[in-house]
Amino acid sequence: MQVYILTLFPGMFSPVMNTSIVKRAQEQGLVRIRPVDIRGFAKDAHKTVDDYPYGGGPGMVMKPEPVFEAVDWVKQDLGRQPFVVLLTPQGQKLTAAVAKQLAEKPDVVLIAGHYEGFDERIRCLAHMEVSIGDYVLTGGELAAMVVLDASIRFIPGVLGDQDSALQDSFSDGLLEGPQYTRPAEYRRLKVPDILLTGRHEDIYRWRRKEAIRRTLRRRPELLRVARLTFEDRCLLEQVINEEKAGESCSEARGDIRGHY
Amino acid sequence: MQVYILTLFPGMFSPVMNTSIVKRAQEQGLVRIRPVDIRGFAKDAHKTVDDYPYGGGPGMVMKPEPVFEAVDWVKQDLGRQPFVVLLTPQGQKLTAAVAKQLAEKPDVVLIAGHYEGFDERIRCLAHMEVSIGDYVLTGGELAAMVVLDASIRFIPGVLGDQDSALQDSFSDGLLEGPQYTRPAEYRRLKVPDILLTGRHEDIYRWRRKEAIRRTLRRRPELLRVARLTFEDRCLLEQVINEEKAGESCSEARGDIRGHY
Repeated sequence: MQVYILTLFPGMFSPVMNTSIVKRAQEQGLVRIRPVDIRGFAKDAHKTVDDYPYGGGPGMVMKPEPVFEAVDWVKQDLGRQPFVVLLTPQGQKLTAAVAKQLAEKPDVVLIAGHYEGFDERIRCLAHMEVSIGDYVLTGGELAAMVVLDASIRFIPGVLGDQDSALQDSFSDGLLEGPQYTRPAEYRRLKVPDILLTGRHEDIYRWRRKEAIRRTLRRRPELLRVARLTFEDRCLLEQVINEEKAGESCSEARGDIRGHY
Repeated sequence: MQVYILTLFPGMFSPVMNTSIVKRAQEQGLVRIRPVDIRGFAKDAHKTVDDYPYGGGPGMVMKPEPVFEAVDWVKQDLGRQPFVVLLTPQGQKLTAAVAKQLAEKPDVVLIAGHYEGFDERIRCLAHMEVSIGDYVLTGGELAAMVVLDASIRFIPGVLGDQDSALQDSFSDGLLEGPQYTRPAEYRRLKVPDILLTGRHEDIYRWRRKEAIRRTLRRRPELLRVARLTFEDRCLLEQVINEEKAGESCSEARGDIRGHY
């Protein structure tokens, strides 16, 4: 996978490119990331990339020409048409499924425009518009980093354990349940006994049940579309009954937030 | 506003801290951002911050002790209890409203744990758990940057134009409509005539209508809760009729994606 990031701040990407899985993926030759400075495609002496909006109003609008020419340059560099993604709060929401879809493209261009406004014609370049969420950011740079990080993990070989991506949150439509590590007791907060028993089947069932409980409590709408087995449905029914009976607090330790 | 970011990768934050509004806000003394290395609070010689999960399974889990001690240190440093936010895909969704709420806190701690798993007890420290979207990231660092950037713009004085934040996407519950700047024609793509007329009232109405159209097309669910005036409702009715009649394409230029 080759990723070109069209940005006014190419330097912002170096820490992400030099950390963690993004770094590893590059070293393994699984992905090549190339920040491209849009300003390099401005034609005038002042390297102008924005201008006043037609019709008036506050803020500046990113000009179309440098972005069009930067995309042209990428096409030439590749020798073929890349898949062009525009980061904008008006785009379709980034989800694990969208990230996976992008990871399957051989060449991707991410256009990190200024969120406060880019010339509408720039949209003509994009095959997909993506939003990372319903909030406003200063620029598309952070959004591009998020898309990059969320996508790269779906490229085969990037994650150490091939199955890790599948075990992650959202892959089966449930939130992840609680995890614990040593010490077994810390500041009077204890690890649930079941996890110390070594009874793997029981542990598996407990984890699954707590993942279902957390999803029910926090994101019940996800349960409607989650891939649940017959056993999952039985666990869900148990959880619903427990929640109704108010038994869950001592049992679950699932939402112990703010007790400390 | 003081923001402490608890992270294993404090170096990742420098580009964001040195760019754009985050930089300006710091220079103006409106915000103080301090990345804190969680590893500095590990007790053993190897500076261990993670360990195997109780009950088995893939991946490592972030240990509770260094995080608890880092939060203790922040409390001491401040002399009071900060508002603690844990970044996790299981948290409540970041929205403009949540970002605004955080911007009103005097002291905020952002805990950027590894997303693949942190000890459940770490949740006890958090007053709020926040997710930037339904996708998995390698770590909470990018999420922390997004929260920071989305929040800081709500601190009075941070944005050049006091009203800019209000004019942004989502502030009135609608998506932003199209924006244009020079040239009036580029690669045979033209700016809509109305914007060149100088008739401010008509331009205002056109913009409002196109914002409503875009919202209707892309995020119709937002219209149910958007703050619409009586005039907005008339425009919405017009748009609905136009969309039904299929008149919109030549008129709106709102979704010209992929035509180039």
